[in-house]
Amino acid sequence: MPRMEQRLRTVAVIGAGQCGHQTSLLAESLGRLLAETGFSVVCGGLSGVMEAACKGARSAGGLTIGILPGTDRATANAYVDIPIATGLGQMRNSLVVRNGFAVVAVEGGNGTLSEVGLALKAEIPVVAIGRWSELPGVLPARDASEAVTLIRKMAPFSA
Amino acid sequence: MPRMEQRLRTVAVIGAGQCGHQTSLLAESLGRLLAETGFSVVCGGLSGVMEAACKGARSAGGLTIGILPGTDRATANAYVDIPIATGLGQMRNSLVVRNGFAVVAVEGGNGTLSEVGLALKAEIPVVAIGRWSELPGVLPARDASEAVTLIRKMAPFSA
Amino acid sequence: MPRMEQRLRTVAVIGAGQCGHQTSLLAESLGRLLAETGFSVVCGGLSGVMEAACKGARSAGGLTIGILPGTDRATANAYVDIPIATGLGQMRNSLVVRNGFAVVAVEGGNGTLSEVGLALKAEIPVVAIGRWSELPGVLPARDASEAVTLIRKMAPFSA
Amino acid sequence: MPRMEQRLRTVAVIGAGQCGHQTSLLAESLGRLLAETGFSVVCGGLSGVMEAACKGARSAGGLTIGILPGTDRATANAYVDIPIATGLGQMRNSLVVRNGFAVVAVEGGNGTLSEVGLALKAEIPVVAIGRWSELPGVLPARDASEAVTLIRKMAPFSA
Repeated sequence: MPRMEQRLRTVAVIGAGQCGHQTSLLAESLGRLLAETGFSVVCGGLSGVMEAACKGARSAGGLTIGILPGTDRATANAYVDIPIATGLGQMRNSLVVRNGFAVVAVEGGNGTLSEVGLALKAEIPVVAIGRWSELPGVLPARDASEAVTLIRKMAPFSA
Repeated sequence: MPRMEQRLRTVAVIGAGQCGHQTSLLAESLGRLLAETGFSVVCGGLSGVMEAACKGARSAGGLTIGILPGTDRATANAYVDIPIATGLGQMRNSLVVRNGFAVVAVEGGNGTLSEVGLALKAEIPVVAIGRWSELPGVLPARDASEAVTLIRKMAPFSA
Repeated sequence: MPRMEQRLRTVAVIGAGQCGHQTSLLAESLGRLLAETGFSVVCGGLSGVMEAACKGARSAGGLTIGILPGTDRATANAYVDIPIATGLGQMRNSLVVRNGFAVVAVEGGNGTLSEVGLALKAEIPVVAIGRWSELPGVLPARDASEAVTLIRKMAPFSA
Repeated sequence: MPRMEQRLRTVAVIGAGQCGHQTSLLAESLGRLLAETGFSVVCGGLSGVMEAACKGARSAGGLTIGILPGTDRATANAYVDIPIATGLGQMRNSLVVRNGFAVVAVEGGNGTLSEVGLALKAEIPVVAIGRWSELPGVLPARDASEAVTLIRKMAPFSA
C-alpha cells in the first residue's frame, strides 16, 4: 500500500458541544486510540465531544487541531494544539470533515448531522457510534475500539 | 400577527441536482404553490429539484434566487432571476437555508441532508417530502400542497 | 457585441458603512446612473455608501441586491430589494465583488481595500472615485458620471 | 506583560505564490527569524513566498501552518507541518490573517493586497516589506530583521 504523508494522517471527530459523562468518556477513549494508532485528531475545537477527543489524543501524545467557528483562537479548548479561527460559524463544519481522511461521529445533534451529510457528499468515509449510525452510507461502530478498527481498514495507507 | 417585510418572505427549496420525472414534477408544483401563496423561492441555483422549483415559481410570477456553489453566475439554471455566485462549494448550502424563513426538502441526497442539519441547527423549520422526512425535528409532508399548508402555518406573519 | 443576459448586468458598488454627506450624495448619484443605464446594483447591504447607492438605484427603478455579513436578512438597509444573509463576516466581501461584472469603489476604508484586492485578483475591472483610485490596476474616475462611462465601455455586452 | 499561550504565538506571512529569487530569500530569512524568536508561521500554504517562509521557519525548528484555498491537503508545500484545506478559494485569505496576532507582507500582488485590507479591518497589525509598505496603517520594514523587531514590539506578550 502506498504511504500517506504523516501530516495527512488526520481523523475528524465530530459530536456535540455539550454531552453527558458516558459520551465524554467514549470520545476521550476514541481520541486516545486514534493517537495510539498514529493519527492526529481534527475537530471543531470547542467543548463536549470535541474537548474529550482532544484530551484523549493528547494523553497518548497525539496532535490535535481545532477548527473554530469564531474569530478568536483563544476560545479553543485547552487540549487543542493548533487552534484555527475561521469566523465561518457552522460553515466551519465543512472544514472539519475535509481535514480528516475519515470522520468518526460520536452521538451528536443537528450540527453533527450536517457534518455527516457534508462528509458523505464529499465521499469521505463516516463511522458513527450511537446516533446517526443508521443513516444510509454511514458505517456503524459499537464503541471506540471498533471505530478505530474500521478507520484503519479504510485508511488509504498502511496504519 | 405582525407583518413581515415582503422581501423576507422567502422559502428555501432543497433537493438533488439530478432527479427523476416524478420528483421534478413535485418540485415544480411546490415552486408554483409557494409563488401563488406570495413567497419567493431561494435554492442552490443548479439543475434537478432546484431548476424544477424555480420553473414552477416563475410560472406563477414568483421571484427566484439561486445561491450557486461556484463563482460563475452564468451557471444558474434558466429560471433563476437572481443568481448569486459564492465560490463556497457545498458551504453555500448554509446560505441557501439561511435565506429562507423555512425550508422544504424534496427527496434529495447527502447535500440535502447537510442542509437539513444546518437548518435545524439554526432553528429554521424544515418540512420534508419523501426521503429525510423521518429525521427527528423534521415535519413530514405527503405532497407539495401539504408542505405549503405547513409553511403557511409556521410563517412568522400572516400569509 | 454578444448580448449578456439581463440578470448578469450587475455592478458592485463598494465603500464605507459610515460616510459624510458629500460621499453619500456621490454614491446615490452613482446608483441612480447605473440603474438608468440598465444595471442592477449589488453591494454589502448595510449603511453609508451601500445604502446611498441602493437609494439612488431604486429611485431610478433599478434592482438592488445586498450581500450581508451576518445571518439576519432584516439587517439590510431599506433600499435593498434582495437581501442575502451569509454569516461570512468580512469574507462576504468576496461575494460582493464576484457578483458584479465590474466594481466601483466610492472612497472607503480597509474593508473596501480588501474588496479592491479581491476584485483585481479575480480579474474583475475596478473603477475608483477618490481614495484607492491610484492603486495599480484601478481605473480612476472623477465623479459618478465618469465612472458609469468607464463601466459601459468595459461591459462585456452592449449597454 | 501578560503571557500569551504558546499556541497563539503565530505570525501570518503573506505574499505572492510566484516570486523572484531575492524575494524568496527574504521570505526564507523572515521565516527563520520568526521561528528563532519563538513564533509559529501561518500562511496560505502554497508556493513562492509562502513556501520560502515555511522553509525558513522549519530550518529553525519552527511550526508551520498552511491554510489552503482548495480542498486537497496534499497541495500544501513540502514545508507545511499542518495543512488545512478550506475550499474557500481567495476567501481563505481572511483565515490566514486571522490566525496570526500580526501579519508580515513580503512584496505580493492583489491577493496580498486583499489580505492587508482584511487584516487592517480586523485591527491586526500589518508590517510590509517592499510593495504595499506605503499604504496607510501599514508599518514599513526594510528587511526581515526589522520586520521581526517590529513584530516583537507589538506582541501582546513578552517575546
